Amino acid sequence: MRLIDFSVVILLSLSPLTAAVAQTKTVAERLGYPADSKLLIVHADDLAVAHSEDAASFDALDKNGVTSASVMIPCPWLNEVAAYAKDHPDADLGLHLTLTSEWKTYRWGPVASKDTVPSLLDSSGYLWPENAPAEQHIKAEEAEREIRAQIERALAMGIHPTHLDSHMGVLFSRPDLFAVYVKVAHEYKLPFLAERTPDAPPSLLALLSDQDIILDSVVVANPRVAPSDWRNFYFTAIRNLKPGLTEIIVHLGHDDAELQAVMVDHPDYGAAWRQRDYDVVTSPEFKKALQENHVILIKWKDLKKLLN
Amino acid sequence: MRLIDFSVVILLSLSPLTAAVAQTKTVAERLGYPADSKLLIVHADDLAVAHSEDAASFDALDKNGVTSASVMIPCPWLNEVAAYAKDHPDADLGLHLTLTSEWKTYRWGPVASKDTVPSLLDSSGYLWPENAPAEQHIKAEEAEREIRAQIERALAMGIHPTHLDSHMGVLFSRPDLFAVYVKVAHEYKLPFLAERTPDAPPSLLALLSDQDIILDSVVVANPRVAPSDWRNFYFTAIRNLKPGLTEIIVHLGHDDAELQAVMVDHPDYGAAWRQRDYDVVTSPEFKKALQENHVILIKWKDLKKLLN
Repeated sequence: MRLIDFSVVILLSLSPLTAAVAQTKTVAERLGYPADSKLLIVHADDLAVAHSEDAASFDALDKNGVTSASVMIPCPWLNEVAAYAKDHPDADLGLHLTLTSEWKTYRWGPVASKDTVPSLLDSSGYLWPENAPAEQHIKAEEAEREIRAQIERALAMGIHPTHLDSHMGVLFSRPDLFAVYVKVAHEYKLPFLAERTPDAPPSLLALLSDQDIILDSVVVANPRVAPSDWRNFYFTAIRNLKPGLTEIIVHLGHDDAELQAVMVDHPDYGAAWRQRDYDVVTSPEFKKALQENHVILIKWKDLKKLLN
Repeated sequence: MRLIDFSVVILLSLSPLTAAVAQTKTVAERLGYPADSKLLIVHADDLAVAHSEDAASFDALDKNGVTSASVMIPCPWLNEVAAYAKDHPDADLGLHLTLTSEWKTYRWGPVASKDTVPSLLDSSGYLWPENAPAEQHIKAEEAEREIRAQIERALAMGIHPTHLDSHMGVLFSRPDLFAVYVKVAHEYKLPFLAERTPDAPPSLLALLSDQDIILDSVVVANPRVAPSDWRNFYFTAIRNLKPGLTEIIVHLGHDDAELQAVMVDHPDYGAAWRQRDYDVVTSPEFKKALQENHVILIKWKDLKKLLN
C-alpha cells in the first residue's frame, strides 16, 4: 500500500518557507485589487496522467470550475494535453514537475535519457513509486537535469507554462531540491508554488528573490475528509478564506474503468476521490460560494505578469 | 492520418520468407497429431497498450477465446500485465517487440536509455509514429539493443515469454532488422512469428536454423472488411484453414472512453474494431466453428517445447 498524502507532503515540507521578502504592496494591490482582497487560484493537478483525468480537467477548465492546472510531462497522455493547449492558447497551464511514478499498474519513466538520471529510477527503470525512496536517492543535479528536460519537452510541444509546481511535493522535500526548483523557475521567469509559513530557515529564504510570490495558504483535500463531507470541506475552506493569496488544489477525473485501473488499491487520491473533486468544482453551488464570499479568482498567468 | 495496415505489413514484409528448412516431420506430427492436422494459434496482440486492451485480452485468455497473446514492453500498462502473468503462470504470453508508438494522443518511448538508441526516436523522444520513418531511420544495432532491453525488462518483471513477434511488423521491414530478430530469438531459444511464402531470397533463409518453425499462414482482419462482415471474415477463414500451422491475429479491447481516446481519429485497428474482435473470439459461435472444422488449438509454448 502506497501512501500518497499530498496534504502532509505540502504542509510539512513547505514549513521552511516564511514571510519571505518584504514587498511594499500586497499581491492584490499589484494586481489592481484592494489590499485585503481574497485572491484564489483553483488548480487542477496531474494533467496527462490519464485520459479520464484530462477529460475531466479540460471540462472543468472550459467551465471555469478551475482557473489553472498543471501537466505531468513524463506521462503517456501528454500529447492529448498539448493538443488541448494548442486549441486553448489562453488556458492557464503550468508544469507539475514529476519525479515519481506512484501507481501500481501503470508507470512512466523520465524525460531525460535514463543514463543521465540514474538516481531518479527504481530497479525497473521507472521513476520512484513513493516519496521516501525519491527523497532518499535523488541527486539534486539529476533532478535539475530532469526538470529542465521536462520544461524543454513542454516548450517543444507548444505548452508554454504559466507556472511550476511539484508532483507529490518531492521538490519540497529537501533544501537542495527546493534550491533547484527555485533556480530553474527563476531562469525561466516562472512563478512557482510555495506556501508562506512562520518558521522558514534563513538558508531557504536566501534562495528567494524580491520578485517571488509566496502563497499565503494552500488548501487540499486529505484522506481524513469523509466522502459524505466532500462538498462541505471545500465550502468551509471558501468561507474561511482570509485576505491574501490562496490556492485550492484539486485532482479531477471520472470514476471510470481507466482511472479505477490506474488507481487500483488506492482509494486516497483515487478515481472516486477525483470524481468527487470534479463534481464539486463544476457545481453551481461552488461558483455561488465563491461569489457569496467575495472571492476574486485569479490565474498563475496573472502572477507571471508581475515578474520582471 | 496515420495508416497502420498490419495485414499489408505482415504479408508484404514477410514475402522474403519461404519453405525454410526441410523437416522430416510436420509440426503437427512433432506435437503428436496426425501429419495433416489443422493447427491454429489464436493470438491477441498489443497487451499493455491500454487498460481496456488488457481487460479484454485477459478475459479472452481466461475464456480460451484466444490461446496466446503478446505484450508491448515499453507501454504504460506493463505492470498490469506483469501482475496477470504472475497470477496466471500458464498464460501463453510472448513479447510484441515494439519499435513504434503510433497513436496521436498517447505515446511511449524506448526501454533502453534514449542516448543509446537515438535512431529509434522521433523529435519528441518517443518511438517513431509510423512504419515509414521507422524503416528509414532505425539502425539495426540500436534495434537489437532495444529489443534485448525489452526482453530483459520482461524477464525482470516476471514475464517469461513463450515467443516473439513484431509490433506493426517493423522487424520484418528490412533484412538487417529481420536478422536481428532471428538472432535474438535464437539466443533466448524462443520461437518467433514468421510466415512461409514461396519466394524468399537465400540470404534470409540462411538466417534460419533447422529448429525454426515457420507458420504456413497468418490471418488478420484488415480495413477492407466491413464491420457488418466481421464475424463472417473469421468464420470464412476458419472454414478455409488448410492442414499446417496457422495464426489468427486479433486485437482485443473494449469500445470505451479510454480506448476511443487512444485511437482517436483512427478507425482502422481502433476501439470499435477491437471490440468487434473481442466479441467474435469470446462468442460460442467462434468455438463452435473451430470444433466443426476440426481445428486443433495450440499455443506458442507448445512450439517452444520443440526447440532444443
